[in-house]
Amino acid sequence: MVADVPGFGTSNEFGLAICELREALPGDDSVSTDADELERHGFSLYDYHPGVLHSVVVYPLTTDDVVKIVNISRKYRMPIVPYSGGTSLEGHNRGHASGGICVDMSGMDRIIEIHEADSDLVCQPGCLWVDINETLRQKGTRLQLDPAPGATIGGMLSTGCSGTNAVRYGTAKGEWFLNATVVLPSGEIIKTRSRARKSSAGFDLTKLFIGAEGSKSLSKATEAAIEVLNQGVGIQCVELLDDLFMAATNKYGMSLRKWPEKDSLFFKFQGHSAKSLDETAAVVRNDQEATSLWADRKNALFSGLALLEGDDGKGWSTDVCVPPSNLPRLVYETKQDLSEIGLVSTIVGHVGDGNFHALLLFKTDEELEIARHAVHRMVKRAIALDGTCTGEHGVGIGKKEYLYEELGYGTVELMKTIKRSIDPLGLFNPGKLYPDPPGAADPRST
Amino acid sequence: MVADVPGFGTSNEFGLAICELREALPGDDSVSTDADELERHGFSLYDYHPGVLHSVVVYPLTTDDVVKIVNISRKYRMPIVPYSGGTSLEGHNRGHASGGICVDMSGMDRIIEIHEADSDLVCQPGCLWVDINETLRQKGTRLQLDPAPGATIGGMLSTGCSGTNAVRYGTAKGEWFLNATVVLPSGEIIKTRSRARKSSAGFDLTKLFIGAEGSKSLSKATEAAIEVLNQGVGIQCVELLDDLFMAATNKYGMSLRKWPEKDSLFFKFQGHSAKSLDETAAVVRNDQEATSLWADRKNALFSGLALLEGDDGKGWSTDVCVPPSNLPRLVYETKQDLSEIGLVSTIVGHVGDGNFHALLLFKTDEELEIARHAVHRMVKRAIALDGTCTGEHGVGIGKKEYLYEELGYGTVELMKTIKRSIDPLGLFNPGKLYPDPPGAADPRST
Repeated sequence: MVADVPGFGTSNEFGLAICELREALPGDDSVSTDADELERHGFSLYDYHPGVLHSVVVYPLTTDDVVKIVNISRKYRMPIVPYSGGTSLEGHNRGHASGGICVDMSGMDRIIEIHEADSDLVCQPGCLWVDINETLRQKGTRLQLDPAPGATIGGMLSTGCSGTNAVRYGTAKGEWFLNATVVLPSGEIIKTRSRARKSSAGFDLTKLFIGAEGSKSLSKATEAAIEVLNQGVGIQCVELLDDLFMAATNKYGMSLRKWPEKDSLFFKFQGHSAKSLDETAAVVRNDQEATSLWADRKNALFSGLALLEGDDGKGWSTDVCVPPSNLPRLVYETKQDLSEIGLVSTIVGHVGDGNFHALLLFKTDEELEIARHAVHRMVKRAIALDGTCTGEHGVGIGKKEYLYEELGYGTVELMKTIKRSIDPLGLFNPGKLYPDPPGAADPRST
Repeated sequence: MVADVPGFGTSNEFGLAICELREALPGDDSVSTDADELERHGFSLYDYHPGVLHSVVVYPLTTDDVVKIVNISRKYRMPIVPYSGGTSLEGHNRGHASGGICVDMSGMDRIIEIHEADSDLVCQPGCLWVDINETLRQKGTRLQLDPAPGATIGGMLSTGCSGTNAVRYGTAKGEWFLNATVVLPSGEIIKTRSRARKSSAGFDLTKLFIGAEGSKSLSKATEAAIEVLNQGVGIQCVELLDDLFMAATNKYGMSLRKWPEKDSLFFKFQGHSAKSLDETAAVVRNDQEATSLWADRKNALFSGLALLEGDDGKGWSTDVCVPPSNLPRLVYETKQDLSEIGLVSTIVGHVGDGNFHALLLFKTDEELEIARHAVHRMVKRAIALDGTCTGEHGVGIGKKEYLYEELGYGTVELMKTIKRSIDPLGLFNPGKLYPDPPGAADPRST
């Protein structure tokens, strides 16, 4: 039924591979060559494309099981086809002409964590989206992707799914999938991103696996975090402006009124003017005030500089982003740190995204070095809080040293490999974004 | 000031490169080595990262100019740094240690097309987002990305920008950028996607350049199409259900009532029950009816099969997606085609996304071949209408032959190159997604 195909292992080798799979995977039902099983996994009632059956179906229960399968696949050059909900329509689940391994993810179907405050959850790739929504319904929210009822998360990611709600909520190629844990063909496990809602730390490797249909990864999103519907309907943004920023705004003098110099939260509603809902802050009384406040927010650098005496002040502006629930801690610790170094600084944040900006003011070269070290500590703190070195400013030169720590060695090397495959001479923007190899000298330690 | 750096051209070679740039680019002001120009492009008042100035600043006016610059860069191994709005904060605009070419996109600042019916527009990379919003304001809409006021589209794409509105509208890494025209380091021009709102045709190469910070592309998005805010606030989905589908729904008998057997549009509103707004269709009277109608929509395959006599009917389900304004023509021509081939078929569409599904019903092998050819014609028609071979079902085996036609040779080869760089042995899902080389036999022509 299957044939020896050049470039792949022989039937004999595939037999050895199946023996190794039986040894490697625990449980009696983890490896099957039962005819009905092969038929169910390699044939479909819903499409009519040619193809053969797989040689074997395996049922991993953990990411480590997946690694074992991939390593055996590589050893015997035996193709791998992932199997998620089995609802695909274009022959996705057919076997390869040489036979091969069908990896059925139905044994990895658990929701692992729900982060209500962050509006995200972590689940395994075999999880049904209807089961997720049944769980979320009790919390008054839902995942708005709605493919076929039998679809599971691994396939939804791997095909870039959408459904009837996409006009309003976008597709899986948008921002529903924050990250994915992926087993590469090398057997290496990578996680594509942090759990921060936004990141400008390079191009988004999650997106590289969305729509790849398992052709690149084992499709597995073994611990994919999914952004669920933002609960605050109608909230366009929530901005945190600290006491010093409010003071700076008053001093810069572009605003129509003087604001209380307290830490404040400002909400912007869709279709309404900006209003402050923080009881400790004054309420914006009309559209004109709202407009001038948001203009001041945009002028953060200049209003910040107004805090320094004289015209020779400078500001180091930087950003980090963490899961929203970690933002209070990050802001608290960073404010404390900044208050101890003797520099004037302001903090403003996009609270809804867990993204915050610090502006550190200085005049002398000595103060610049103090600021540089403080920013370094802030970035380290954000990464330790499951965040990213940059939420929206990007990497450039200033943040590239943090990518290994944030993303892991394997993820960064993958980015560099893709980079090399497209730009073999390294002529486009050399020295930016991609970090130097680990162990290169830290300028702050010399 | 700049030094000869191993792996890059020498200072002498860079001198020759600058001469060639002057010959290649029209106009007296297209190539500048003026000290003030170099200072303005390679230094920043807003960050404090080390770096040197560029050797030369060039001002392309067309994509072809960009190709010429890239070819000269490659010839002399002279680095390229893109320059968009110049609002970046992490040393993005610094020169390379060897010197190099700064490509300032300010001469390419036009909005080229606005597609109101599709809620997208096409513009050049030097276009200011505030200028775009000034234009869109007159049409009652806006782009919701809001980085620094001086930011331009090329940099916004290249950094994966966001801003204060991201909690509600997502970031540039979501679905604001539909596609980009990119000049690769090889000098080749590729377009990353069609203008269709959704596509499951592989992983999204647009995303590969979003956040790449010009390190992979010339950042250029020379004709990037931008998804602007969906005008229909509160509309969660708009579904087109054709006359035969409505008949099938009645016949399948799961619905609580009988529906008029006419082409119908159904709207689902956020926070409300489903209601039909099409005057030619009946109005849903309560939540229970709405629920049952949407359930039938999900059961399209089974209700469709109810149209055939007997139990041996089969259905070929497929999807395509085009810019929404092209959907009426695509549906009209496809209905006409399907009515002439003697098969029963139904059409349902996600109108808001320009995505539609056809279900072709058949019993015999002969009818299957007729259906296969009809699907082929439908896909060709969709691609000719600036669309994609699949809006959400994916490529698998069934659609891979169309990728070259839809995406272009260069784009597909880039996808394959990335695939090869990650999966050198080709073990993951071989034979799926990536098309065979052009010229391979068409099964329908034999």
